[in-house]
Amino acid sequence: MLGARGGWQALRRCASLPRAQRAVRLRVREALRAREPAGGVKVQGWVRSVRSQKEVLFLHINDGSSLENLQVVADPSLENRDLTFGSAVEVQGKLVKSPHRMQDMELKAETIHVVGSCDTWSYPLKMKERHPLEYVRQFPHLRCRSNTLSSLLRIRSEATAAIHSFFQDNGYVHIHTPIITSNDCEGAGELFQIEMSHEARKSAEKTHFFNVPAFLTVSGQLHLEVMAGAFTHVFTFGPTFRAENSQSRRHLAEFYMVEAELSFTESLQDIMQVMEDLFKTATNTVLSKCPHDVGLFHKYIAPAQKDRLEQMLKNKFVIISYNEAVEILKQASQTFTFKPEWGCDLRTEHEKYLVRHCGEVPVFVINYPYDLKPFYMRDNEDGPQHTVAAVDLLVPGIGELCGGSLREERLPFLESRLQRLGLADAYQWYLDLRKFGSVPHGGFGMGFERYLQCILGADNIKDVIPFPRFSHSCLL
Amino acid sequence: MLGARGGWQALRRCASLPRAQRAVRLRVREALRAREPAGGVKVQGWVRSVRSQKEVLFLHINDGSSLENLQVVADPSLENRDLTFGSAVEVQGKLVKSPHRMQDMELKAETIHVVGSCDTWSYPLKMKERHPLEYVRQFPHLRCRSNTLSSLLRIRSEATAAIHSFFQDNGYVHIHTPIITSNDCEGAGELFQIEMSHEARKSAEKTHFFNVPAFLTVSGQLHLEVMAGAFTHVFTFGPTFRAENSQSRRHLAEFYMVEAELSFTESLQDIMQVMEDLFKTATNTVLSKCPHDVGLFHKYIAPAQKDRLEQMLKNKFVIISYNEAVEILKQASQTFTFKPEWGCDLRTEHEKYLVRHCGEVPVFVINYPYDLKPFYMRDNEDGPQHTVAAVDLLVPGIGELCGGSLREERLPFLESRLQRLGLADAYQWYLDLRKFGSVPHGGFGMGFERYLQCILGADNIKDVIPFPRFSHSCLL
Repeated sequence: MLGARGGWQALRRCASLPRAQRAVRLRVREALRAREPAGGVKVQGWVRSVRSQKEVLFLHINDGSSLENLQVVADPSLENRDLTFGSAVEVQGKLVKSPHRMQDMELKAETIHVVGSCDTWSYPLKMKERHPLEYVRQFPHLRCRSNTLSSLLRIRSEATAAIHSFFQDNGYVHIHTPIITSNDCEGAGELFQIEMSHEARKSAEKTHFFNVPAFLTVSGQLHLEVMAGAFTHVFTFGPTFRAENSQSRRHLAEFYMVEAELSFTESLQDIMQVMEDLFKTATNTVLSKCPHDVGLFHKYIAPAQKDRLEQMLKNKFVIISYNEAVEILKQASQTFTFKPEWGCDLRTEHEKYLVRHCGEVPVFVINYPYDLKPFYMRDNEDGPQHTVAAVDLLVPGIGELCGGSLREERLPFLESRLQRLGLADAYQWYLDLRKFGSVPHGGFGMGFERYLQCILGADNIKDVIPFPRFSHSCLL
Repeated sequence: MLGARGGWQALRRCASLPRAQRAVRLRVREALRAREPAGGVKVQGWVRSVRSQKEVLFLHINDGSSLENLQVVADPSLENRDLTFGSAVEVQGKLVKSPHRMQDMELKAETIHVVGSCDTWSYPLKMKERHPLEYVRQFPHLRCRSNTLSSLLRIRSEATAAIHSFFQDNGYVHIHTPIITSNDCEGAGELFQIEMSHEARKSAEKTHFFNVPAFLTVSGQLHLEVMAGAFTHVFTFGPTFRAENSQSRRHLAEFYMVEAELSFTESLQDIMQVMEDLFKTATNTVLSKCPHDVGLFHKYIAPAQKDRLEQMLKNKFVIISYNEAVEILKQASQTFTFKPEWGCDLRTEHEKYLVRHCGEVPVFVINYPYDLKPFYMRDNEDGPQHTVAAVDLLVPGIGELCGGSLREERLPFLESRLQRLGLADAYQWYLDLRKFGSVPHGGFGMGFERYLQCILGADNIKDVIPFPRFSHSCLL
């Protein structure tokens, strides 16, 4: 094709023509880790600092591949007025061993080309300033260029990969559970409803696009249960939604959840084991892949978090029953706002006390009151304090990180519970699963942003998401 | 904690107590791949066939870890009436070399425990039947237990992992772009609008939860551009939405999209190179990880797809310009429903012709008319036939698989175009990005379901998603 005239025009416009001596393009991260000096190197990125001395010009270049900048050393004659903080540059030259102890390698520039200038006057980020998280949150389209947020987003990316790997390495099939669902009965919180756009509704012949009301998912659990009946071990990792009308530092309208479902479980222990393994394996991976990025948080944002995290990774997680938890709380010398009582939900103050009581390590609380929990949880058939096989994982500094349960796999139990709730018709398909090779199974969910907070100690959940819009004003 | 009374109760209920001689639990896939015979093995799964002979009982067990079943050989005395097709079993025994050529290993059963029986009469799947895709689509909660759909979902899971790996291995940062967005101006198709639920709206003091109208994302591109200005190479892989009122075999209301954005591009060639590398690398990974699963599709569902796919992987993708494409179509002997004309969009019939004309290999069509394409595409400043640096990738049997472009990084060009469209205010943040270290950049999106269709030859897009609900009736 390329011989034809149109093709030639195309080539001229789109092909990168070979040059006589083409420089090798390196990312900053690669340049910093190079073992040997090398000539003919090209690095592209944004200027993080400019320091002009009489005999030498120093630049720090960052391209987002690492927290560390690459130092560029140049002849002062290469300086020009567009070479400012925030501008984009392409530097060609020689990679050499650096005489400074802060870095192994630096780039001795032969040419510096300013690719894009920066209007530093109106640019909200300033050179060498450590901008507070509250400040950069005002600039959702630019804050990813600050050290803290770029570290966060690299960590978020590595944590995502680590969670995927954990499940894949353990034989789980990854399932994309539906985002739009007609499933609204779980009682997991306020739902967002989906409609046709205002325009489309005017001309449409029907009220609902899908003929029935449709919502944004609050959990993929029920769909995962379907899949666990075919694949034994499945997981999902995607966005979930709550229309909770809160400006809190702890809640988001849109957040990510990791959920896993396991067939052929013997007890709640199987679920807890996966939770603990997931937490420890993924966290160790993140710590080894982004030590500098995590270090920034542990140094400047939450200095206590490093030790706390090490304790969590080193110790076996503690298991207590809900009954025991209530006893511990009743015997506490502390006065709670909400009096601990068997049959009531544990509040944040209670959770924090329990974690402290157990020695500031993660605590599984198991076997919750039957009447507190949703219909799908497995009846423990105990009494007089009737419980279900539910588990919450409480972690220091955060409170609840994961929640899970064994699911009721026995048709008669589930059927009578759904009938009492008037939900038997809506959940016919769910009952169906119990008629065809039903097996003991269970699963759990882990809030991904909570997990990131737990690694990093970030206090406000809006600082661990890519775009901090949903404090009820959509900026983007 | 575990010494206390509650803790002991907890343990009794949840811990898996060690037995004298605990059998080793193996997944079916592991059992089939074992190198050596082994005693004390436990396999759990669902019965795919029961064949009772006078002297021996044969079962085939599947647990979703592979397409292949594990053959269980047992004494007829172990048979019981609950041991039917679809029932769930736990088999303990010895893993031995199989005398049959179809499998390496089989399990000689010592005990067979039916964990969950199956009401075979009402179970819509039948033993040893190859159910057509149209048939199993009626049972969204059970079809994942059919061979075809379980193969599909394993492939989908591996393809997801392969795409993530491709980007991570190439230094891309993974970004979760927002699902809920106020961004509605892209013109990429009909939008879904987000509302508070009907209940909540009655009592709410405001019309919109986020104070402004909010929509489900149609693309993460603009958000990715923000991130490419910090990380150079970024990608996202998540759900996107179109409220297109169609019952077609080609469209979904909810589908997955892979999107990548690259800073410091030299030309459209950079984008095309990533598209081609992504396609070939991910596909080769899937083919090597799930040969049997892909083989099932290539054998029973789309027999022509195997050769077609091999051609795609073997050959360099062809590049033609839009100008050239129109010339080819004008000179074609075929009569088209829509007459090819410079300035008009390419229709499916045109795309198919072009792919055939180029020898049934993937074809990049580049440099489309300026007036056909959205505001963010880079002006080629050519003429009189004015084009932008856009690219579509057409593949045999599917048509358009990917679309991308260079983005307009030059502030004056973008500003005047947005002003003409009356969008300059709404996109102030987008213009901002061009003031602060703006660099040539571009990116592309690939429909993930289309990609799966391309590997497998599956004709109906509803057969490559986990839950086939969105033919306008929500079943789950």
